[in-house]
Amino acid sequence: MRLYVTPASPWVRRVRVAILELGIQDRFEFVQTKWPHAWGTRTVVPHPEFMGDTPVARIPALVTADFTLTDSHSICDYLNGEFGNFRLLARDGVARWRALATISVANAIIEAQISRRAELLRSDSERSSDFIAKMRDRQLRCFEALEKQVQGFGTEFDLAQITTAVACGYDDWRYGNDWRGVAPKLATWFDAVSQRPSLQATRPAETPQS
Amino acid sequence: MRLYVTPASPWVRRVRVAILELGIQDRFEFVQTKWPHAWGTRTVVPHPEFMGDTPVARIPALVTADFTLTDSHSICDYLNGEFGNFRLLARDGVARWRALATISVANAIIEAQISRRAELLRSDSERSSDFIAKMRDRQLRCFEALEKQVQGFGTEFDLAQITTAVACGYDDWRYGNDWRGVAPKLATWFDAVSQRPSLQATRPAETPQS
Repeated sequence: MRLYVTPASPWVRRVRVAILELGIQDRFEFVQTKWPHAWGTRTVVPHPEFMGDTPVARIPALVTADFTLTDSHSICDYLNGEFGNFRLLARDGVARWRALATISVANAIIEAQISRRAELLRSDSERSSDFIAKMRDRQLRCFEALEKQVQGFGTEFDLAQITTAVACGYDDWRYGNDWRGVAPKLATWFDAVSQRPSLQATRPAETPQS
Repeated sequence: MRLYVTPASPWVRRVRVAILELGIQDRFEFVQTKWPHAWGTRTVVPHPEFMGDTPVARIPALVTADFTLTDSHSICDYLNGEFGNFRLLARDGVARWRALATISVANAIIEAQISRRAELLRSDSERSSDFIAKMRDRQLRCFEALEKQVQGFGTEFDLAQITTAVACGYDDWRYGNDWRGVAPKLATWFDAVSQRPSLQATRPAETPQS
């Protein structure tokens, strides 16, 4: 299977951490992509074969012999069900719904982080300080919500924890530490799980631009 | 259960159609929300209890006695598994992954439609014509991709078909008919399924602003 990646994308990191936690990295060809900063407002072609593989033109994109999955939600669902025996996310029942509730908040943080990043890459004249503030406020509200959930996290480093850790890690890397002030227990948890090999191996780094 | 809705949101429509197709509408209190046009760049409060119910502050949001789901992906997964006996989306296996592949393309259209709408609601000085073109191009590429999949659609009006129909319907309503030129077979399919009661009952309409 071919997986399009960059080291900066939190959506890619979520998938890569899931792959490492399941120990199935040998099944994938990881294809590095390049993203000029114009991606914030323009369609860019980050790899010669990319546009043929996914009409969405976003990463991560997973190309199998049979189908292509073009977002981290469906890719994680596939990895968990096909190769993980539902270890990262329960197949059904209240355990799944509660995990999805946490995941939906952590995903909302990541969406806001990426939308804010795209806004920051705009030209000065088209950049909305209101929009940036809206995304920042959403990030902080969601971190406050996760702060109340962290004490219920189990011993398994599952998809809810993976997604939460990726959201924390991206905020540290890209936006400084303002989330740590509103979510101190979450910060303590994150600093501990950050030592896991899957998170150490996927620390964020700038994407090649050309 | 309380479900926050508006008649304009395609994400809400996706959930409402799933509920109607499963015949479980009596289980929900549908809470109408109001969205002043400032939502494109500012945090707005569309209902007095809304911000306490969801830190993400987006719709749809489903509040149960036990947890809150704040995006249509997790809500549809929950409805399908808890009340639908996996009729709208297979529980696992290749039938699920293939459906997710279609859903991820249709979801990408809806995301682009909403991002483009938010951009159009910006002040003239902060509006990026490049960004609008990028979203439009993504919508059309994804409609072209769905055009190749429509012949494989089965007789069950499942979550892949629901999501595709919602994407088609929003484009017709908000952006005119440019997708019909690139996806004529999809347009024929959509015109036929549009007669279903679930789609008739959820036709898009403007959201109350105040």
